[in-house]
Amino acid sequence: MVFTHTFERPTRGQGDVHDVTDEVTRALEGSGLSSGTITVFVVGSTAAITTIEFEPGAVADMNRVFDTLAPRDAHYDHHLRWGDDNGSSHVRAALLGPSLTVPFRDRALVVGTWQQIVVAEFDTRPRTRELAIQVIGE
Amino acid sequence: MVFTHTFERPTRGQGDVHDVTDEVTRALEGSGLSSGTITVFVVGSTAAITTIEFEPGAVADMNRVFDTLAPRDAHYDHHLRWGDDNGSSHVRAALLGPSLTVPFRDRALVVGTWQQIVVAEFDTRPRTRELAIQVIGE
Amino acid sequence: MVFTHTFERPTRGQGDVHDVTDEVTRALEGSGLSSGTITVFVVGSTAAITTIEFEPGAVADMNRVFDTLAPRDAHYDHHLRWGDDNGSSHVRAALLGPSLTVPFRDRALVVGTWQQIVVAEFDTRPRTRELAIQVIGE
Repeated sequence: MVFTHTFERPTRGQGDVHDVTDEVTRALEGSGLSSGTITVFVVGSTAAITTIEFEPGAVADMNRVFDTLAPRDAHYDHHLRWGDDNGSSHVRAALLGPSLTVPFRDRALVVGTWQQIVVAEFDTRPRTRELAIQVIGE
Repeated sequence: MVFTHTFERPTRGQGDVHDVTDEVTRALEGSGLSSGTITVFVVGSTAAITTIEFEPGAVADMNRVFDTLAPRDAHYDHHLRWGDDNGSSHVRAALLGPSLTVPFRDRALVVGTWQQIVVAEFDTRPRTRELAIQVIGE
Repeated sequence: MVFTHTFERPTRGQGDVHDVTDEVTRALEGSGLSSGTITVFVVGSTAAITTIEFEPGAVADMNRVFDTLAPRDAHYDHHLRWGDDNGSSHVRAALLGPSLTVPFRDRALVVGTWQQIVVAEFDTRPRTRELAIQVIGE
């Protein structure tokens, strides 16, 4: 009834968005379950999960809006605490959120043709992201 | 343990927000389950799910903030790719997210009196939205 | 397979963010389940759930971005309807969302060391928040 899968994804820093739909689909297939929900969660407070039409234009557009909303070079109190430079990363990640739950039926994700599951890296340096997938169903 | 329900909702284009709490409640009642979680997911990359006090003022306020954050008439790289005009739709939908998971107990959704489950249409043209509901519990 | 837990958290008004990771962890421990997902949901339309590195700087940074995005003193149609002053609260809460689903394995939440589960109060007055936790797994 519960199937777990973890994988890592290296990223190149702020604004690097990765399509992980194939990895999620493989986890679903590996579960042997036919109906339920699949939760995709990124570990850490400077990355996030959402869906988007994964083409370079839409990804650039999303990044541009985040650049306006939480500019990398603005003042962040977080920098004063740790000497970090990733205050913009924390704010963007908190807004977008680390978790996504997607239904599946007949062993297939219920997503649109142009709707990909993505992890958005917001940190200011390359990271190796751990993603936790939990398949629950029957 | 898993109960699935799908329904369609016609929308009128960007900024059209629909209260789907009744439909979600009916899916829960139809499941016969008493305790668990219900996931509401909108198929496609230009609409999103959240909760809001569903009255015209709050909905207009949310739309106004999205109009400022990702204006419909701004430049979007997505337009260059497909000749589309809905770059603002993709950005708004990615930010708000396509999925919501709500607990239920004693056969009732655990939501506030003034907290409705809504689908927000962000596309620039009318659409018929498919919503997938997954009830998991006992 | 399903374990439910509810708790209350008094808050001090807009911008008051509380780390509830310990309470969520206790609910998980109380469930006796070892693998599955835990959903944290805040009841009401003027608060939200996310994860953030819970230190005063990052919290202040997030609040500052929300102050710019949906300023408390701006015009809100919602105010005209009810004579309320919390239009900014509704917009912020709808954007951030009331729900978070986190995987757990070997009886432990799969979260980062610096990634706390938080409830963000956006209402303009102190509230007593009800949080509903649903643990599903085996």
